[in-house]
Amino acid sequence: MASMIFCDCSSSTTARLLPLSCHKLRHSCTPLHFSPYLTFSISSSKTSFPFLSIKSHASSTLISAKMATENTAKVIDGKSVAKQIREEIAVEIARMKEAIGVVPGLAVILVGDRKDSATYVRNKKKACDAVGINSFEVHLPETSTELEVLNSITKFNEDASVHGILVQLPLPSHMDEEKILNSVGIEKDVDGFHPLNIGRLAMRGREPLFVPCTPKGCIELLHRSGVQIKGKKAVVIGRSNIVGMPAALLLQREDATVTIVHSRTNNPENVIKEADIIISAVGQANMVKGSWIKPGAVIIDVGINPVEDPESPRGYRLVGDVCYEEVVKVASAVTPVPGGVGPMTIAMLLSNTLSSAKRMHNFS
Amino acid sequence: MASMIFCDCSSSTTARLLPLSCHKLRHSCTPLHFSPYLTFSISSSKTSFPFLSIKSHASSTLISAKMATENTAKVIDGKSVAKQIREEIAVEIARMKEAIGVVPGLAVILVGDRKDSATYVRNKKKACDAVGINSFEVHLPETSTELEVLNSITKFNEDASVHGILVQLPLPSHMDEEKILNSVGIEKDVDGFHPLNIGRLAMRGREPLFVPCTPKGCIELLHRSGVQIKGKKAVVIGRSNIVGMPAALLLQREDATVTIVHSRTNNPENVIKEADIIISAVGQANMVKGSWIKPGAVIIDVGINPVEDPESPRGYRLVGDVCYEEVVKVASAVTPVPGGVGPMTIAMLLSNTLSSAKRMHNFS
Repeated sequence: MASMIFCDCSSSTTARLLPLSCHKLRHSCTPLHFSPYLTFSISSSKTSFPFLSIKSHASSTLISAKMATENTAKVIDGKSVAKQIREEIAVEIARMKEAIGVVPGLAVILVGDRKDSATYVRNKKKACDAVGINSFEVHLPETSTELEVLNSITKFNEDASVHGILVQLPLPSHMDEEKILNSVGIEKDVDGFHPLNIGRLAMRGREPLFVPCTPKGCIELLHRSGVQIKGKKAVVIGRSNIVGMPAALLLQREDATVTIVHSRTNNPENVIKEADIIISAVGQANMVKGSWIKPGAVIIDVGINPVEDPESPRGYRLVGDVCYEEVVKVASAVTPVPGGVGPMTIAMLLSNTLSSAKRMHNFS
Repeated sequence: MASMIFCDCSSSTTARLLPLSCHKLRHSCTPLHFSPYLTFSISSSKTSFPFLSIKSHASSTLISAKMATENTAKVIDGKSVAKQIREEIAVEIARMKEAIGVVPGLAVILVGDRKDSATYVRNKKKACDAVGINSFEVHLPETSTELEVLNSITKFNEDASVHGILVQLPLPSHMDEEKILNSVGIEKDVDGFHPLNIGRLAMRGREPLFVPCTPKGCIELLHRSGVQIKGKKAVVIGRSNIVGMPAALLLQREDATVTIVHSRTNNPENVIKEADIIISAVGQANMVKGSWIKPGAVIIDVGINPVEDPESPRGYRLVGDVCYEEVVKVASAVTPVPGGVGPMTIAMLLSNTLSSAKRMHNFS
């Protein structure tokens, strides 16, 4: 299900660029297809659906009725929210520097010569520079040994001027990724993927040291858009360790009633249709149709998928997991792709690095 | 929501006996109450409901139709399954002893003089003796210091003949429970509550060293009853660290589509009604009604709740979270209380202790 994911959800994961000739790529949302269950879903749900008073309408009538309302969802502007967060972080960093003379530091370990990885690392460095975080980088050759990578991590673990450590993924195939990631000190694991962090995230009454960046960004977008989470039905589509699962745990911590939909879910559209809040992180272009959405739902679209586009200079354009032009007519709010969750990931990485420095120096 | 839980779900948690005069206690299930949503749920769900062919039946007709079928769920006999598991464990222990001369050992640390805690520890010792596990026990006075408890744990952590360590809960109020529990070596944490274990349980591609005993018992009951989990809709009622949350993670690992219902869930009955599999762990006597259950669902009832019963010599009897006499007419299978999940917890503790010894001695 996640074969086409194309975003840097882990903040340390290099995008997996797939061949653009892939037959699965779709130009646009497929035509609306109203199967019998849709009629069922709309007529039997308890959702308010004010422009439909007669339950036995034929599907075609439903379409016309919906189109006639010209409902347009609020667009959640992740780029603008991320900019605001970066500004807040810059202010906090300046305040800490002035008060106790400490500047947060983020170290990145890059192994090999993947161009996309190098681009991500460069973007992270730029983002750090812009808010006043010190960047440290070790670039090791593709042929390095596991021990050399581990030694670099140990050095950063022991370096008091480093408050966050990222190992840029993917690592060369001869290395044990789990072993290397686990060697990052838990108090500097700004990606938040250490099982100890995830365990604390899952447990009531425990606090993780760091929340993984992309899911944290999703929740931050909901908060800053004034979306109430408590008591709402939330569906997370996708159960990856880096987005879906931690996003579900976060929604649960905020008192939503959460269901995770995954590749083994039967009739996922029926489950998704029940949700007040949807976070989609599967990496399938335009998978979620307008007809799958409960009217008024809020949608956070994490997927960033390439689809062929001969009119684009690059030959492709990026779309989300959600068929934007359809859902925008049904949802109350939706994140665009690009410009939705994407910009939030690096903002949350900066936020985690700042939190780490504050915690280490007991500064609040 | 969990105020009345009364079972030893943690395998190290002493039951919280509540005053039996509590006004919340109920003698039996409340009368069936068919609210309008039930008619909705039954008539609109895609569930096969063979004895109801006309969707617009009135509620009263539904009841009569259902009663006429005399549907009776299969009773999942936890006592008998647990006995079988204990026998299998005894065989394995004998085989290991003969092959490599190693006998698994379980250490229990009991602090204070709570009678219920003493009873639980005694029962665990008996269960260990019966399968051939060596028992170790330290009994410290109520006035012990935290350091004395920590020292006992350290001793057992270092003792090669001990493969599992349990700290009997609750601890005296002057002690930091989290600190003490975290001092149990992860490789001997047979309760499986360490955040590192829970994190691994939550993550795809990671394996916990131990699965918490009660949730493990629930899944084992499903497996041994031939219930397919993959692709099914499962609802877990309750989100405690010791049962609800790990049970949901386990169901998710088995490819169910899982929703956790909790005290902040709106209209929980509507969510529960969608489930093919229900695990209830809230500790509310008879909370889940027959009308909340999808026909043919499988129900695992973890709650063990006391209700007043003047006819019982003790003045009370034990019932589950689920209104047994109602759901037995709707479900396809259900665990009784007592005699369902209860006996499984100690069986799983023995199983975890055996697994630990096997892992430490690389015996399979």
